[in-house]
Amino acid sequence: MKNMNFEDELLKRTKDVWEIVESFLPAVEGHQSTVLEAMDYSMRAGGKRLRPMLMRETYRLFGGLGKEIEPFMAAIEMIHTSSLIHDDLPCMDNDTLRRGLPTAWVKFGYDMAVLAGDGLLIYSMETAAKALNYSDRPDRVARAMGILAQKTGIFGMIGGQTVDVELAGKPIPGDKLDFIYRLKTGALLEASMMIGALLGGASEDQLKAVEEMASKIGLAFQIQDDILDVTSNAEVLGKPVFSDEKNNKTTYVTLEGLEQAKMAVERISAEAVACLQKLPGENRFLEELIRMLVNREK
Amino acid sequence: MKNMNFEDELLKRTKDVWEIVESFLPAVEGHQSTVLEAMDYSMRAGGKRLRPMLMRETYRLFGGLGKEIEPFMAAIEMIHTSSLIHDDLPCMDNDTLRRGLPTAWVKFGYDMAVLAGDGLLIYSMETAAKALNYSDRPDRVARAMGILAQKTGIFGMIGGQTVDVELAGKPIPGDKLDFIYRLKTGALLEASMMIGALLGGASEDQLKAVEEMASKIGLAFQIQDDILDVTSNAEVLGKPVFSDEKNNKTTYVTLEGLEQAKMAVERISAEAVACLQKLPGENRFLEELIRMLVNREK
Repeated sequence: MKNMNFEDELLKRTKDVWEIVESFLPAVEGHQSTVLEAMDYSMRAGGKRLRPMLMRETYRLFGGLGKEIEPFMAAIEMIHTSSLIHDDLPCMDNDTLRRGLPTAWVKFGYDMAVLAGDGLLIYSMETAAKALNYSDRPDRVARAMGILAQKTGIFGMIGGQTVDVELAGKPIPGDKLDFIYRLKTGALLEASMMIGALLGGASEDQLKAVEEMASKIGLAFQIQDDILDVTSNAEVLGKPVFSDEKNNKTTYVTLEGLEQAKMAVERISAEAVACLQKLPGENRFLEELIRMLVNREK
Repeated sequence: MKNMNFEDELLKRTKDVWEIVESFLPAVEGHQSTVLEAMDYSMRAGGKRLRPMLMRETYRLFGGLGKEIEPFMAAIEMIHTSSLIHDDLPCMDNDTLRRGLPTAWVKFGYDMAVLAGDGLLIYSMETAAKALNYSDRPDRVARAMGILAQKTGIFGMIGGQTVDVELAGKPIPGDKLDFIYRLKTGALLEASMMIGALLGGASEDQLKAVEEMASKIGLAFQIQDDILDVTSNAEVLGKPVFSDEKNNKTTYVTLEGLEQAKMAVERISAEAVACLQKLPGENRFLEELIRMLVNREK
């Protein structure tokens, strides 16, 4: 990693990660091809592929070298995409565009978008189970599947989404905002890094430390998002700035103010890096990636 | 099982099965209580609890005695319920009543019903992973989770549902009707019995035989449903008869005629019972249950 140009390396590894994820996508064919096409379309619509990348780098941090991680990398991206498909539905955020493309329900119909979200959600687990073909530790594979489901579900991402949807357009008290951030954004990051650690051979204590680190990264990432909404310009961010304020959306910035928010990102991200440095092994790329995520300008 | 009164025994075992499933339902509390309440409401709305019962009886057929089967019994019922919640949505069948109660979207809102369906779908896997606490065969638990996901997903129930939704109100050719029946109805029955067999210690050949038997039961069950729609009276069935015909719905009966349909049920169910009798072990209750399912009058 010496003399590494981080930006170049990030591009290269993002491409690698996508190729791995892509290799697990089911072929678009057969009687049910419409739902398969909707799933495929949504998976290919782009994105930073952040979750599978964090998973893989955490796996490497613990010395993981095998292919057992790959099905889980695909699985976490499927879950993330599933949540975007359902979040965009008319009964939820009613979004017609995502990353410049028509959302799944606009392109394939409301019914097919519900089924495509369901399809990806459970296909993630079907895919994760393929790790059994590459691992001699079925106990870890089963436990990793359990973690994936738990962090996705009602005590994870879906739980956070529930509260977010219920409070849309209403003022949100601090404790509920914290809940939403930790679950809606944080939980899948926790799953990503915990599964990487678990399959890489982390001890129970290390697994706990990784969960805490990922939680901090998620929180800092989300607060940075709130900051960018008021400080960035539209060109850099690719969406209208002050959109949160216009939508009367409660954010960390509207609750605590911009300066407090900036200090919180500094503090929480420093804590996350400190967590990382206390773990055995070294992964300079992962450290850079964490810094980049919370200091990003878009 | 000698001198068993089947009807009494069925009632008793249905109650036992429900108590097991119920013990895995999450408490309705916390910030995300709305979605938890919607999940709980839908799980308690009733039903024959057929899938967990078939799972348990197949587990017993192979000599299974442990508690490892119980999380999977709850899981399969959660998946079934998840599919009912999403099937009832306005963008799908637009149903307002199920088993005499308001459907989830009517009672909790469209957005919460989408989230409750998602929540149950993935909570099924979180629940299934709890079998690790009762099993010394994590390889079987992981594989059973994979089978559960596969039979639920785009190559199982959700795949069948996709085709069913796309062809609603249109004439359906025989090959597509077969696809819908095998996937939409059959796949979860296959998962139920395969998981019972796998955790009970079935060999690969036995697992294949169980899959085939379950597929036949599913098909016979579905054709019997079509027959009942034209032969039963409304009082016994609890819904308007000839509803398929009124809805211009293609069924096995409209394609092949009533006599052919009756003969098909006879033949397929006899094949299923023959499959069962070829397997080692004995489970008279399971045999009776299979006969009852395909000869039922409602």
